[in-house]
This record gives sequence, C-alpha cells and structure tokens, in this order.
Amino acid sequence: MTTLPRTATTFAPPVMEARRWLEGVTFPPERPLINVSQAAPLDPPPDALRQVIAEAALSDPQAHLYGPVLGRPDLRAEVATQWSSAYGGTISDTQVAITSGCNQAFCAAMVTLCAEGDEIILPTPWYFNHKMWLDMIGVHTTPLPAGAELLPDPDEAARRITPRTRAIVLVTPNNPGGVEYPADLVRAFYMLAKERGLALVIDETYRDFDARSGAPHDLFTDPDWADTLIQLYSFSKAYRLTGHRVGAMVAGPDRLAEAEKFLDSVTICPNQLGQIAALWGMRNLGQWLAGERAEILDRRAAIHDNMPAITEQGWELMGCGAYFAYLRHPFAMASDELARKLVQEAGILLLPGTMFQPAGAPSAAQELRLAFANVDRGEIGSLFARLAGLGWPLAPQTASA
Amino acid sequence: MTTLPRTATTFAPPVMEARRWLEGVTFPPERPLINVSQAAPLDPPPDALRQVIAEAALSDPQAHLYGPVLGRPDLRAEVATQWSSAYGGTISDTQVAITSGCNQAFCAAMVTLCAEGDEIILPTPWYFNHKMWLDMIGVHTTPLPAGAELLPDPDEAARRITPRTRAIVLVTPNNPGGVEYPADLVRAFYMLAKERGLALVIDETYRDFDARSGAPHDLFTDPDWADTLIQLYSFSKAYRLTGHRVGAMVAGPDRLAEAEKFLDSVTICPNQLGQIAALWGMRNLGQWLAGERAEILDRRAAIHDNMPAITEQGWELMGCGAYFAYLRHPFAMASDELARKLVQEAGILLLPGTMFQPAGAPSAAQELRLAFANVDRGEIGSLFARLAGLGWPLAPQTASA
Repeated sequence: MTTLPRTATTFAPPVMEARRWLEGVTFPPERPLINVSQAAPLDPPPDALRQVIAEAALSDPQAHLYGPVLGRPDLRAEVATQWSSAYGGTISDTQVAITSGCNQAFCAAMVTLCAEGDEIILPTPWYFNHKMWLDMIGVHTTPLPAGAELLPDPDEAARRITPRTRAIVLVTPNNPGGVEYPADLVRAFYMLAKERGLALVIDETYRDFDARSGAPHDLFTDPDWADTLIQLYSFSKAYRLTGHRVGAMVAGPDRLAEAEKFLDSVTICPNQLGQIAALWGMRNLGQWLAGERAEILDRRAAIHDNMPAITEQGWELMGCGAYFAYLRHPFAMASDELARKLVQEAGILLLPGTMFQPAGAPSAAQELRLAFANVDRGEIGSLFARLAGLGWPLAPQTASA
Repeated sequence: MTTLPRTATTFAPPVMEARRWLEGVTFPPERPLINVSQAAPLDPPPDALRQVIAEAALSDPQAHLYGPVLGRPDLRAEVATQWSSAYGGTISDTQVAITSGCNQAFCAAMVTLCAEGDEIILPTPWYFNHKMWLDMIGVHTTPLPAGAELLPDPDEAARRITPRTRAIVLVTPNNPGGVEYPADLVRAFYMLAKERGLALVIDETYRDFDARSGAPHDLFTDPDWADTLIQLYSFSKAYRLTGHRVGAMVAGPDRLAEAEKFLDSVTICPNQLGQIAALWGMRNLGQWLAGERAEILDRRAAIHDNMPAITEQGWELMGCGAYFAYLRHPFAMASDELARKLVQEAGILLLPGTMFQPAGAPSAAQELRLAFANVDRGEIGSLFARLAGLGWPLAPQTASA
C-alpha cells in the first residue's frame, strides 16, 4: 500500500503531453503538421444534428436541468432496443447506463468490481487511460502481452488469474492496436471469465467502424450475460460528439445501482444536450454513419496501400483497423524519442508505443500508433512519403545518444 | 483495509432515493407536491443564454470537439480575472481548472491529496456526496460536529488532526445547514491548515447567494494561498446550468497538473457547450444574477417570516441561507421515517438529517433540510401551513413504532 496521493501513483495524460511537443515548433506551409495523435473526429457533427442540439437548447427547458444519474430514459431504451437487435440478445433499458463519455464508463465499471489491491488483466499494448485509472484506484494491472499478432491469448490470461483478479478487459476493435478480435476469441475470454467468476469488460468504442458485417461477438445471446459481461460504448466517434461527453455502460441492474453511487458523486448526471444529440443520432443517422464507416475503411485500405513505401526500410504493420495503425519502426531509437523527433523533422505528431505499455516493456521502444481517422487518402500518402524519407539520418543520432 | 469493491463501501445517492419515495403516491390538485428536496433551479437559463448555446451549436465547430482536459482557456482566464477582483487577491488562469460540475472538482481535489487510509475532516451535517466519494476512495472521514449553531470550531478540528489527516473541508454558504461562515472563522481554519501542513478545501457552490456584500473571506489575499487553499465552485446555480455540468477548481498549478490525470481518465474534458454558456454568463449576466440573488434572499426571509407558524409546535430553525433551511422537528420519530411520511401525509418532499450525518448520529434523527430555491413566497407559506397542520397525528404513530 502506497502513501502517495492517488494521482501521484500514475503518469501524466499522454495526449496532453504530446500536444506540448508542438510548442515552439513551426510547420512550413509546404509541409504542414500531420496530426495522427488523437483518436477523435476533427469535423463537427452533421448540420442536422447541430440543428437538433440548437433547437433543444432553445425550446426544451429540461435540456438545461439535472437528469437521472444513470441517464435519460429515452436514450437508455434506445440503446437497449438497438443493441438487442444488433447483438441478437436481450438487453433491457434497466441494463443500460449513460455516462459522461466511455472513459467514465470504464471508471465506473472498475469501482464496482475492485477494492484496493485487487487485480485486473489488461492486454498490452493497452489504452493508457485504463492503466491510469487502475493506478489511481489502487488496483494492480496485470499485463497480458498480446504478441506480434496483437491478439491476446485466453490460456495466457488464465495463467495470470490470482485470488485477487476481478476482471479481464478487452478493447475491440482495439486501441491502440487496431485489431478486430475474432468472435471466437472474445467468446473464449468470456467462457474463461465465467468459469473463474470474473467479469469480462469489453470496450467497444470503435464498434461502428468494424470492417466485419453483423455482430462482432455473440455474448449477449447468453441469457445470463449480465452475470459476467460489462460492455462499454462511446457515442463520440459515431456521431462526432467528442466535445459533448456521452458514453454508455451495459451491465446488470445490480451493477448499475452500484455504478450509480460513483456517477452521482463524480458528475451527478451526464449532460443533457449530449444525450439528446446521441439519441437523435441513433434514430436518424444510421445511413450517414454507414458512410462514415466506409470512409474510415477506405483510409484503413490506404494504410495498407501505402505500406510498401516503407516496408523495405524495415517498417512493419502490426495491426490496422478502427481508427488505428500500429507500426513497428526500424530505428535504433526508443519510440518516445523518435516520436518527438518526428514532430520536428517530419511534421508528424503520433504517439509512441511507450505510452501503451508498462514501463520498460522492450517491444514498446519499437512501436508507434497512428490514429488515421482525421487524415484522408491524400494525407496518408504524404504521411508515408515523409516516413519513407526519414531513412538513415535518424539512426546515427540514436547511436550517439 | 476492506476487500469490498469501492462502491460497496458507501450508500446509495440520497437524491435518487428520495425521488423513489414519490413512486405510487398521488398528489391531489388541491394539495400538489411541494418538492424541496434538491438544491437545483427548476427553471431553464434566461433566453439570451439559451440563444448563445444554440448559436454555438450551429456555428462553432469546436463546440462539438474535445477541448483541453483542464478546460477552455477563455473560461479559465475569466474566472481568474473575476476572482482576483472579487476576492482582492491574485489568481492566474494557470490556477483555475474547469471540471464537469463542482462534485467532480471535489473528487479531483481529494485524489490529489489522499492515499488509501488517509483522513479528511468534514464538519457535520455534511454534504452527502463528499462522504460518498471519500468512502469510495478509501479515505476515512473524520466528522466534526458543527453543534447547534452549525458553525464548526477550529479548536475541535485541531484536536482531530492525526498524522494521516490531509485536509479540512468547509462548505460555505453551507449545504445542508444554510449557514454563512464568518470570514474570521474561515481564516482561523486556514491558519490551522497552514500551520499543520494540511490543505483547506472550501466549496463555494452557493457563493453567489451569500447575503453579505463583498468578499466572503480574505484567503486569496495571502500571496501564498495556493500552498494551502483549494477552492471549489459551481456554475450550475448562478446561471441555471445544472444539466450542463460545469464547475471549477482553483488551486496551484502543480496541484492542477495532478488533477489533470484524474480528470483526463474520468471524463477527458468538460463538455464544451456548458463552458461556452458559463463564460457568456460570467461576462453578461451579472445584473441578472443580482436579481436572482435578491429573489433567493427574499425566499430566505420568507422562511424566517413563516417560522412562527410552527415554533409553538416545537420546530426550530437551526440555519437558513444559500438554498437551504435546516430545521429541528419536534416529533418522536427519526427524520428518515418522518420524511417518508411527509410525502404521503403532507405532499412535501425534503431530505432527512440522517442523509447528512454519520450513521447513528443522534442529532440526525431530529433534523430536516428544506431546499427552498424552487418555492416562492406563496409556496413557502403553503409549506409551513402544512407543517403546522401536522400536529399530534404523527407523534402517536411513532410511539407505536
């Protein structure tokens, strides 16, 4: 047990740190900054959705007032209905809570599961905010290296279970790896969790950009899913609502009653306009979202198309999907140092593997995450041209460091 | 150290519990429900502010996207400027963080201060969300009974300091007690905290409805205030923005850098439209807010004016200010039981003292909180008439219970 204040047990927010790398750096017009650091749309929501938010602000008094801690009943019901259909199971509105973003849904899930000193199994590379939260609530994170294919192994997970283990967390499609976990793999983790009396937490923030058609897993078809499964979702990516903070947690009503204590204390309720926007989006933007997905899938294809430009220099594409390409670089330089150099020498802002791995994990030094959702085919071409042009100038600088 | 999950160490949200007391109860038209349970405006913000939110939704793309974790620079700067003027000290924009409501500011402050097993001194009656959060982060709450005057005593606080104590928390004007702490008292707590190397956390959510003119305390005039003081604020009450979740934490930049880790993990950033609304409110609604304050002060006066109707039955007014009257009732019945009966027998929803005190605190059984911000002079008259009409029918039911 540490006597450090909770926040002193973890690291600073990586995205904010990366933003600071831009300070004092100028980007010439002929080589503007290519920012592939954050997994967030840079365009606002479609006009019709903005109109809906404006209209609610003007004419719906309730849009400005406190709502229920677990979210608006209409949005909870809509999620339940659409999820039941999409996943082929039965999800009721009492099994849905709306949260102030998907990070908050993760935080809520963890505090319903864990006491000080408990353990959570997290595949690596991990999503850094998961690790930060576990640090701050005094929970030990057990890394589960996902290997070269970025697919975690249930048998390896089983070997890491101890009496203090409370849950296994999967992010699929994966951040940062971009890998879509096969339905069979997800089910194997579910069966393991069920057998061992653990929770399986699945963060499906990038669900709407999965390249596969149909349900990405069949866990909700188990009538007893709520005994084991906790699913997390974000409305931010699908409807470009990052600035509104709306996510969801799908779990049993007993767990949501526990989560309610946390959510009440930490924000009282999700903001209303964001929820109104999410509901309208769910009901009206299905076709628009299909177009968004097609565009993301095209950008993903563009990553594959451009890889040959850098493979002969020794780059490797480890994973590619959702908003992310996860790469292995060829330089004799740690990824965090390389990332900073890429800002200055190539006008590229991306996040290094060191931000997604335990301190000292050897593979982290070679890995980089590209969040490609905000760069179109042309920009992806430029990005790879810049990477291809790096060549040997970087290696000697490392050798002397 | 408990092995219960964090949320299992605390109680359910009182406001949600009280809402459930209304289920299945009908209120006849001649005696409608008088809801004095929640400290929240029931009217939306003024039209001009709603127009500003709508306009931002339509024409400001940034209003829909992620912003900085610690809030929008323009709002941080505005708070710094107005605070420096209002409190007669120097507060810079780097000493202001915007949070998703004032509850979140409290949560953030606590995790920058405390490890598992640390202690926080909290005057009683307390604000229940403070107690819930401390429970959930494994921090021991040391109650500091505020006594009949509802004013905590610094000497009593000093006696409760141990090597694990990290802070003293004051809420002024007080929730639930309604008492405005004298500037001298606040300073005495500040000097105590400073001498003993603790933080003094002051929650000033109800600051804008203080009956006194001028600064409510002089702590910001100490050039070293940031070594000791953490101030919390809410935009919800002043501008009727409860559904938007915007609050603030004023503290040293080092502490805010620590808070940033928590805020990033738990919500990423405060929602943008709420911040835009708060900024416009601060810049343009000063005069409107003065009118709001005058109305609240009139309702407060109405409580005093109506007290004679119930004093002869043995009721006592312990504190009255901000949004709250805190009362001692005359019945031989615990306040939580009485509160439930008042819903059914008098059409009044209020919160019992048991929700604001440690389990088993004897005074809690006699206390009730009225949140009077949503009831005008006429309704306050009706409320007291109903209380006056209760008389003996309640007492015998208790005797038999």
